[in-house]
Amino acid sequence: MPMKELNKYTADEYIKALTEFHGNFAPGLFIGGFMVAAAIRRMGEYEIFDAICESTACLPDAIQMLTPCTVGNGWLKIIDTGRFAITLYDKKSGNGVRVSLDPQKLDRFPEIKNWFFRLTRKQEQDQEKLIHEIQSAGENAFTIRNVTVSRALLGKHDRGRIAICESCGEAYPEEECGLCRACQGLEIYSKLSRVG
Amino acid sequence: MPMKELNKYTADEYIKALTEFHGNFAPGLFIGGFMVAAAIRRMGEYEIFDAICESTACLPDAIQMLTPCTVGNGWLKIIDTGRFAITLYDKKSGNGVRVSLDPQKLDRFPEIKNWFFRLTRKQEQDQEKLIHEIQSAGENAFTIRNVTVSRALLGKHDRGRIAICESCGEAYPEEECGLCRACQGLEIYSKLSRVG
Repeated sequence: MPMKELNKYTADEYIKALTEFHGNFAPGLFIGGFMVAAAIRRMGEYEIFDAICESTACLPDAIQMLTPCTVGNGWLKIIDTGRFAITLYDKKSGNGVRVSLDPQKLDRFPEIKNWFFRLTRKQEQDQEKLIHEIQSAGENAFTIRNVTVSRALLGKHDRGRIAICESCGEAYPEEECGLCRACQGLEIYSKLSRVG
Repeated sequence: MPMKELNKYTADEYIKALTEFHGNFAPGLFIGGFMVAAAIRRMGEYEIFDAICESTACLPDAIQMLTPCTVGNGWLKIIDTGRFAITLYDKKSGNGVRVSLDPQKLDRFPEIKNWFFRLTRKQEQDQEKLIHEIQSAGENAFTIRNVTVSRALLGKHDRGRIAICESCGEAYPEEECGLCRACQGLEIYSKLSRVG
């Protein structure tokens, strides 16, 4: 099954593919697919684009599955405002489209509302009904905006010289103090022992 | 082609799959595949595990392609120390394996060294030679450590109540001030206009 081509997925195929990529079915990733599709449809004039995801939950995977933008290639930035919204934009001008799930529009979609506001426990959700409602709601549950992404977020930053950290001896993008960010105090490990 | 099963990929298949997912061939993603494989081999006693990636470049995609951990499902955390290293760990105990590309070991591998320290310009890299050297180097270019991930990074945080931001009207995980993080000053857009 071709990745990255939303139009080639039926809803059932997308559910299968997202479950494979994401590890389990997640309503947020399903609805995220429709949000990404809504944005792509409006980005027609741009052949390539970058993406911003405002939530760390589910949505980044919808973008990574359905567009060429991934975290690792740098075309997807995650800026965690906590809002359930994605933006596709032209990397030069910053012009693009932001799609968010609109809480004001959810009274017509009780299953989506229950899931989104965590009003029902996971075990009590009717997944079939929720899937059906997401499909029939489509763009009616979203607010879609034309946006210009702030200049500070545009463009590639020069990645500069690779240096050796004076403390851990590992390579890192050079900073003035001579230490990588871990040795500057970004603690990750409580124990670390060499085996190979 | 099955995703998430490194052992089923030949090197050529992995190059094809990573190019499809990542958008272009990237040496860091190719070498990252070997790093993830080296960690997986040592995580035999754990059926499931979480992942930490210490770099935003390339490596997150190797983890997302070859393990069940993605940014969107929360099993992959990106903690940008700038170091070229990945960690797989048991989410309860924090015990796991960290694999890093070791700058001290690269004198034997001149093509990898040139690429890693950006000593040659992209256009001047001999990609065939580099691919061959990455394959023949294998784990000899890595340092592999047993680690325990700090307690603060373990466990799921309760995601709490979903509230409506008093300023933008969008939903977000409730914070005391009544504002989502964007309206608290995390600026993303210089222009925003409603179209749907």
